Amino acid sequence: MTEPRDGVSPVSLTAEEGPDQPSVTPALEDLYRGFEKALLVPLWTRIGDLMPEHPRSRARPHRWEWSTLLDLAGRSGDLVPVGRGGERRAIALANPSLGGRPYATSTLWAAIQYLMPGEDAPEHRHTQNAFRFVVEGEGVWTVVERDPVPMRRGDFLPQTGMNWHAHHNAADHAMAWIDGLDIPFQYDIEAQFFDFGRDRLSEEEHTTPDRSRSERLWGHPGLVPVSQLGRGRGTPLLCYRWADTDAALTDQLELEQAGHPGTVEPGHALVRYTDPAHGGDVLPTVRAQFHRVRSGVETAPRRETGSSVYQVFDGSGQVTAGDFSWSVTRGDLFVVPSWTPLSIRSQASPSDSDSGALDLFQFSDAPILSKLDLFRTHTEETHA
Amino acid sequence: MTEPRDGVSPVSLTAEEGPDQPSVTPALEDLYRGFEKALLVPLWTRIGDLMPEHPRSRARPHRWEWSTLLDLAGRSGDLVPVGRGGERRAIALANPSLGGRPYATSTLWAAIQYLMPGEDAPEHRHTQNAFRFVVEGEGVWTVVERDPVPMRRGDFLPQTGMNWHAHHNAADHAMAWIDGLDIPFQYDIEAQFFDFGRDRLSEEEHTTPDRSRSERLWGHPGLVPVSQLGRGRGTPLLCYRWADTDAALTDQLELEQAGHPGTVEPGHALVRYTDPAHGGDVLPTVRAQFHRVRSGVETAPRRETGSSVYQVFDGSGQVTAGDFSWSVTRGDLFVVPSWTPLSIRSQASPSDSDSGALDLFQFSDAPILSKLDLFRTHTEETHA
Amino acid sequence: MTEPRDGVSPVSLTAEEGPDQPSVTPALEDLYRGFEKALLVPLWTRIGDLMPEHPRSRARPHRWEWSTLLDLAGRSGDLVPVGRGGERRAIALANPSLGGRPYATSTLWAAIQYLMPGEDAPEHRHTQNAFRFVVEGEGVWTVVERDPVPMRRGDFLPQTGMNWHAHHNAADHAMAWIDGLDIPFQYDIEAQFFDFGRDRLSEEEHTTPDRSRSERLWGHPGLVPVSQLGRGRGTPLLCYRWADTDAALTDQLELEQAGHPGTVEPGHALVRYTDPAHGGDVLPTVRAQFHRVRSGVETAPRRETGSSVYQVFDGSGQVTAGDFSWSVTRGDLFVVPSWTPLSIRSQASPSDSDSGALDLFQFSDAPILSKLDLFRTHTEETHA
Amino acid sequence: MTEPRDGVSPVSLTAEEGPDQPSVTPALEDLYRGFEKALLVPLWTRIGDLMPEHPRSRARPHRWEWSTLLDLAGRSGDLVPVGRGGERRAIALANPSLGGRPYATSTLWAAIQYLMPGEDAPEHRHTQNAFRFVVEGEGVWTVVERDPVPMRRGDFLPQTGMNWHAHHNAADHAMAWIDGLDIPFQYDIEAQFFDFGRDRLSEEEHTTPDRSRSERLWGHPGLVPVSQLGRGRGTPLLCYRWADTDAALTDQLELEQAGHPGTVEPGHALVRYTDPAHGGDVLPTVRAQFHRVRSGVETAPRRETGSSVYQVFDGSGQVTAGDFSWSVTRGDLFVVPSWTPLSIRSQASPSDSDSGALDLFQFSDAPILSKLDLFRTHTEETHA
Repeated sequence: MTEPRDGVSPVSLTAEEGPDQPSVTPALEDLYRGFEKALLVPLWTRIGDLMPEHPRSRARPHRWEWSTLLDLAGRSGDLVPVGRGGERRAIALANPSLGGRPYATSTLWAAIQYLMPGEDAPEHRHTQNAFRFVVEGEGVWTVVERDPVPMRRGDFLPQTGMNWHAHHNAADHAMAWIDGLDIPFQYDIEAQFFDFGRDRLSEEEHTTPDRSRSERLWGHPGLVPVSQLGRGRGTPLLCYRWADTDAALTDQLELEQAGHPGTVEPGHALVRYTDPAHGGDVLPTVRAQFHRVRSGVETAPRRETGSSVYQVFDGSGQVTAGDFSWSVTRGDLFVVPSWTPLSIRSQASPSDSDSGALDLFQFSDAPILSKLDLFRTHTEETHA
Repeated sequence: MTEPRDGVSPVSLTAEEGPDQPSVTPALEDLYRGFEKALLVPLWTRIGDLMPEHPRSRARPHRWEWSTLLDLAGRSGDLVPVGRGGERRAIALANPSLGGRPYATSTLWAAIQYLMPGEDAPEHRHTQNAFRFVVEGEGVWTVVERDPVPMRRGDFLPQTGMNWHAHHNAADHAMAWIDGLDIPFQYDIEAQFFDFGRDRLSEEEHTTPDRSRSERLWGHPGLVPVSQLGRGRGTPLLCYRWADTDAALTDQLELEQAGHPGTVEPGHALVRYTDPAHGGDVLPTVRAQFHRVRSGVETAPRRETGSSVYQVFDGSGQVTAGDFSWSVTRGDLFVVPSWTPLSIRSQASPSDSDSGALDLFQFSDAPILSKLDLFRTHTEETHA
Repeated sequence: MTEPRDGVSPVSLTAEEGPDQPSVTPALEDLYRGFEKALLVPLWTRIGDLMPEHPRSRARPHRWEWSTLLDLAGRSGDLVPVGRGGERRAIALANPSLGGRPYATSTLWAAIQYLMPGEDAPEHRHTQNAFRFVVEGEGVWTVVERDPVPMRRGDFLPQTGMNWHAHHNAADHAMAWIDGLDIPFQYDIEAQFFDFGRDRLSEEEHTTPDRSRSERLWGHPGLVPVSQLGRGRGTPLLCYRWADTDAALTDQLELEQAGHPGTVEPGHALVRYTDPAHGGDVLPTVRAQFHRVRSGVETAPRRETGSSVYQVFDGSGQVTAGDFSWSVTRGDLFVVPSWTPLSIRSQASPSDSDSGALDLFQFSDAPILSKLDLFRTHTEETHA
Repeated sequence: MTEPRDGVSPVSLTAEEGPDQPSVTPALEDLYRGFEKALLVPLWTRIGDLMPEHPRSRARPHRWEWSTLLDLAGRSGDLVPVGRGGERRAIALANPSLGGRPYATSTLWAAIQYLMPGEDAPEHRHTQNAFRFVVEGEGVWTVVERDPVPMRRGDFLPQTGMNWHAHHNAADHAMAWIDGLDIPFQYDIEAQFFDFGRDRLSEEEHTTPDRSRSERLWGHPGLVPVSQLGRGRGTPLLCYRWADTDAALTDQLELEQAGHPGTVEPGHALVRYTDPAHGGDVLPTVRAQFHRVRSGVETAPRRETGSSVYQVFDGSGQVTAGDFSWSVTRGDLFVVPSWTPLSIRSQASPSDSDSGALDLFQFSDAPILSKLDLFRTHTEETHA
């Protein structure tokens, strides 16, 4: 947000000695003045930064503790109203290496959103692709294209760009959840549109059905409603319930135990949320996945192009991302920049001694890289 | 390139009065200090910048005159050697609103490259997608995956990421051309890989065939070589010759004259360079097109999401991009940021009195937006 | 199966008078003898048959009663062993207009299959795409690529070509179900391969798990197992359970009742079985769907290119297909040839007085037509 | 065409002794009578025919000599008028094993069409996909959607289903060419629609431009007309000129001579006609290719699922298809059924002693098989 917008910023070029640089002579300095005046920059002075041998992220790994986020969100609930203009009581992660911008990584936004009892967040729509994920609590309905969708612990609610949406807290207590969007990416490519909607929801949208209409149409495995084919914008399934995600992860680990394929590596179950209309990623720019790492297991260090945000859903463990390492527990968020090796170690949680698995929600910008033929991964071989 | 990479940059938040902002109280100021300490930024203080109602580009329209570029490139030819490390004698357009970065627009790189007689530019490869376009001259061969491709006025040479390439000037005079790449975009999404290749080309690669092998295999309209299906990386056709582009544009205008469809609007012929293996854009992230505007015609103002760089190939005219307007002539380059209305008026060139059309080469980031469901255009209605 | 395979069958051409036919002269008759000798047939004598103004199916509508099929299948159980060579105790519908061929329609095969207690049907694989649908009973496991899949009333089991499969009856009673395949279509295009597998299943394949491994991996709505992406051949989900299908249909009718979209026409719920890996039809050549028609409702007459086979799953009603009309009840099968208008009327079933809906399983060759740009539908407007 | 259409054809089943057949007993015979009465056929009596271990085509290889075809077509020109009803003076190849049907293979139609000086063939359209290929002569224009397309030796004119088309002979001599269509395939799947158009072409359509409008828009390699994107039905390029095809083949053989990839096997150049809008096969159901086999070269025996029709364009040679072998020369047509190994040997033509290559036009039903995951090929290894 600090880029100059107006006037002509003079290009500042210094002729410097260097192994790959031309000799500094008066003629060269005169040439560089000519470049500046004409708003030109020679490649040979910048190529190392611009075209590195492998991704070197501007962001860095970082962890935020859930207790801190929740405390600050709660105080915001008391001090900051929700309404048109500010639009949402959402507080975003600001990567420590991104100059104070509210960017979790170079391309992704992640925030805690907080809604007080009885509050509505006003309707709007935007090109940014978004989702909600609930680590604890319930009581809020997200209303998407007039369809109220309940939110409960473990639920994942995707929302493709340009669908109208609002939030309504029907409970007698506040509720917090995380929002993920592609705001930094769309800021970079300058594709954003934003429209304000109605200030108030209708009576019908204040109802609190147990399931959204979208789930009744699209939430049956492998079955699609013929009347709805080709309608709507983006994924038609507006909520992926925790019971389904949990069952899918449990099944993968049980299959592994029985000697069958199912996990991505020993002790590591992984499901991806997909759009049932095409089977691909759930949002055009965002991949969302859920990991379960069996107690005591450490995953092999793995890099990929593009960045991720993780939230611990259950259990606790140790995370190593490049040169950083943190203990994590329920609700904690951490970010993994592009091409940074990540390894996750699960440890038995005293409060959950039976399973002891570490459950992690993840979202990333992988669809952007994949659709543009730029997705690449590398897993280090480890020796047992 | 100025973002802090190391250490924790404190987030600086000021509680300010404003129509959509909460009242400034000691409690709010204390909350904001808490945000800063925890590396958090509330949405309500930033939403207008982050999520504008329509794209507001950080870049601005600008024009560079070819004569200036060519003069500075020529002086570079005398002072700056070409070799490993600097890699290329390429001088990039730096948009006046992008803080001195060598970015033509927020996502695109454009440079004049210059090679002296007998010089080689060393082999390398990179994930960045690239092309060459020749506004004048000849004598250089671009060697892609060991296939030497001659470059002459009007030729367009695409080169998908991770193909090995080098340049060789076989003539007794220097040659200049423009390079276009998606460097800023790949910098933003942090997907870049770069490998150094051989320092010297082989004897065979120093040959100067009249046509590349790629053209002999893939340059026949609608015909594909069955032996090559599924091979190679990206578009297999490495050169689109001027004679073909010129004929296609001539045909469109003649069809219009005869009362048949062919042009995109009256007097405005437009062809797109495509990958013959799939018919889509010639590069995964870059769209390349060629316009011919009949003498005296003014095109309707048109916006699109994403940005473009244009080079005048022939003729002269007047270009209006948002609040900017310039006279342009052969070789001049100009840039059009996202969602900026562009109109082009062609005037009869004295040196080309018969046709008098304005010929323009264009490249843009449209495939990125299109593949991610973010491409949008708007054409203003004009009244004759 | 009656086409001559050997020798040269003389073409028999008769010069006939007709409105569009040339005058019968000795010269014409001599010409036609020349055609015959050279194995040629002129278009002008055949065009009406070969290129009709709209599809005129060689097949005709027909209904088979379940009680008859079941009785004959039971008698076969006593008289005909199952084993290598005959492969399956399957008895196919032979459309009365297709010359005694075991073709339900011009492209589709449908059969009742019957397995006695303890019997195995031996393993094989073939290019023909197949499925099983269970109208009543349980006790058989279909073993696909060594994964045992239980079969119960209402279950749909797709099986893409070239997957190994066998059947095992683990119960103490016989079981019947229907098989659907694209045998006539693959016979026409001559694409068939068939491989014999193992004569006996392993111990492990004789186990009778409650759910198949495929369901544990792929049966969770919108969730895909990352470890399995890109593996296997065709749809990875080997069973679509009745409980899910029933719930999806119930939801559609309830949404309609509440004033929301969901049904394809008033009182007519319709779901399609899809491959969760891509969201398209469950088999490359076969579309499978399930209809529920509310009691007392009559559907609008609808035609489509390509043919269908229906089985009544529950309820009873009246079906009109072109010039044919039949009463149908549980288990009855009927076929609808290409471009034949079909209307279904549901009547309250005494045995099911609460719901009274008519439930119908359908399969068709629509993916073939759709992928080749030949699918077309037409619904007659009806007046309430 | 001989299938019964009306009435109920009794299924005729005979209980026979056989290695895989049940014992013939009175009970079995009674069961089989029950099957007949109920219009049922057991799989175990038919499986070998219906589900063979590999494709066994109903068609057989056959060759037609061009001189015979041309002579009979010429006599038809004198005796048979062209007009509404008969529609075209087209004479179709009737495979000797297909019971007198005008089918070249089980799925493909091939005919010689003949138009007298000044004649028009009336306008119509149909779902059947079609093309023309010209082995000799010129003077006829095919008018597609009112765009007149000249036809000359070596030209290939594809025409996707449901485009209006007519023919006009503007010369003072008759002209012959071959038509290829998917008539048998569409007959089998019963997808056909046919509409009659205008009886007479307009003045403008009787003009004889040197190039069609479609070529002016779409005939430039790798370049697409932006104004036409998304318009029209099927391939927008209506003619592939011989000069381009010849150049593409020459280039492949010259590249091979220079030690570079280009041919499909030594001495065997092969190009495929593609739709420039998507790079895939030129028609939804038909693949069209052109082979050039260097003098003295014999190609390795190769099978594929699906069938082909070939026409010799130039040169002469020896063709072996399964158990059949023929000498072929200019204009001769031959057919290769599914999974029949084909080998082609080229011999120096006395009349063309310099090049001596054998040039062959081929069309097949490969897109049908490919889109339905049924395409398979096998090439026998040969020892030099």
